[in-house]
Amino acid sequence: MSDFEITPRNRVMRYPKRAAYDTDTIYPILDEALVCHVGFAIDHQPFVIPTIHARMGDQLLLHGLKGGRMLEHVNAGNPLCVTVTLLDGLVMARTVFNHSMNYRSVVLYGRGATIEDPATKLAALECLTEHVARGRWADARPPTDKELMATTIVAIEIESASAKVRQGPPGDDGEDLEYPVWAGVIPLPVMPQAAETDPKQTVVYPQPDYVRHYRRPGRA
Amino acid sequence: MSDFEITPRNRVMRYPKRAAYDTDTIYPILDEALVCHVGFAIDHQPFVIPTIHARMGDQLLLHGLKGGRMLEHVNAGNPLCVTVTLLDGLVMARTVFNHSMNYRSVVLYGRGATIEDPATKLAALECLTEHVARGRWADARPPTDKELMATTIVAIEIESASAKVRQGPPGDDGEDLEYPVWAGVIPLPVMPQAAETDPKQTVVYPQPDYVRHYRRPGRA
Repeated sequence: MSDFEITPRNRVMRYPKRAAYDTDTIYPILDEALVCHVGFAIDHQPFVIPTIHARMGDQLLLHGLKGGRMLEHVNAGNPLCVTVTLLDGLVMARTVFNHSMNYRSVVLYGRGATIEDPATKLAALECLTEHVARGRWADARPPTDKELMATTIVAIEIESASAKVRQGPPGDDGEDLEYPVWAGVIPLPVMPQAAETDPKQTVVYPQPDYVRHYRRPGRA
Repeated sequence: MSDFEITPRNRVMRYPKRAAYDTDTIYPILDEALVCHVGFAIDHQPFVIPTIHARMGDQLLLHGLKGGRMLEHVNAGNPLCVTVTLLDGLVMARTVFNHSMNYRSVVLYGRGATIEDPATKLAALECLTEHVARGRWADARPPTDKELMATTIVAIEIESASAKVRQGPPGDDGEDLEYPVWAGVIPLPVMPQAAETDPKQTVVYPQPDYVRHYRRPGRA
């Protein structure tokens, strides 16, 4: 476990009790999330783009950033902010004021650069593929040189980060506890369902275990 | 149905076939999502903050933005970008290259301002509460004046927006269709589970219908 230094940039301002700055809290959230939101600003205009990510050691890999001026902007070494959010449940309090959500989120800061070296790019693509479904890399048809050329992966050195976590029942207290209405939490898990075979598939292949029993790391 | 003008700011660059610019596509995605990601930039440093939102007509309401310099920045009329992403499934192609996700996302642009008028703020809070669980506003204890004062809601006029939607099976084609591996889609729905009553609740109150049968608008 290591801690990110708390600075004005990554300090959690609202509900600081929910904040964490250690990799033991931050990395599993990054590893469980399937989508991240990448923020950057060009000429004062912010953009937030959802895309696929994976953690490779202390780097965050991004796949699917738009080409053109956005990638140019990233490669010029401009600061990025990447946020992932796992929503766990709805907190239905007795009071409107105490309504909330249970969640685990990470906000991280760094600068990115497109990976150019083919061997590093291949390793990064393996990491991204395995992040989504461990075992898929060995089963799927590997990328051709042409496909690899057409793929853009950005690697970010994580300079700073924080996590924010809320779990548990509503925060009502005092005489509000007597308010006559049901209160509690509605869990909202993502539940992988039976996979739908590609209708173009004429030969029957067995579903790999990581498809039949798909789950995220750390989740039951 | 109305369309947002396509400009350099909101034009979808990557996979433009997946893009849509009409409110009939964009608004239901905003209405279904429970979390949004708000992007803004202060002195070239981008920030992306997850928070609760609700659409009120052609405005987007935000609840839970940090105080301090961030809110100051918003109230000074600086540009915002708000993105919501609904992940629907994992697209497991035969080729690593064609792996993808099924999703529906919206990226919108505008400027925001804190709602100061108490009556407007109350209406906005009702809209946010009902966005999460339709019916809860009538059941929960209404906010006191003090609680309302302690609540910050930002309203954004949506200036520009786009949606991006991918659905369906993998995009493999040609001889790749013969590659001997299972291919298809793993659906990843969010499935509300049996609600957990607050352990501090000593009187048994019935679970309202919107708790017992919780679902998002437009979802089965």
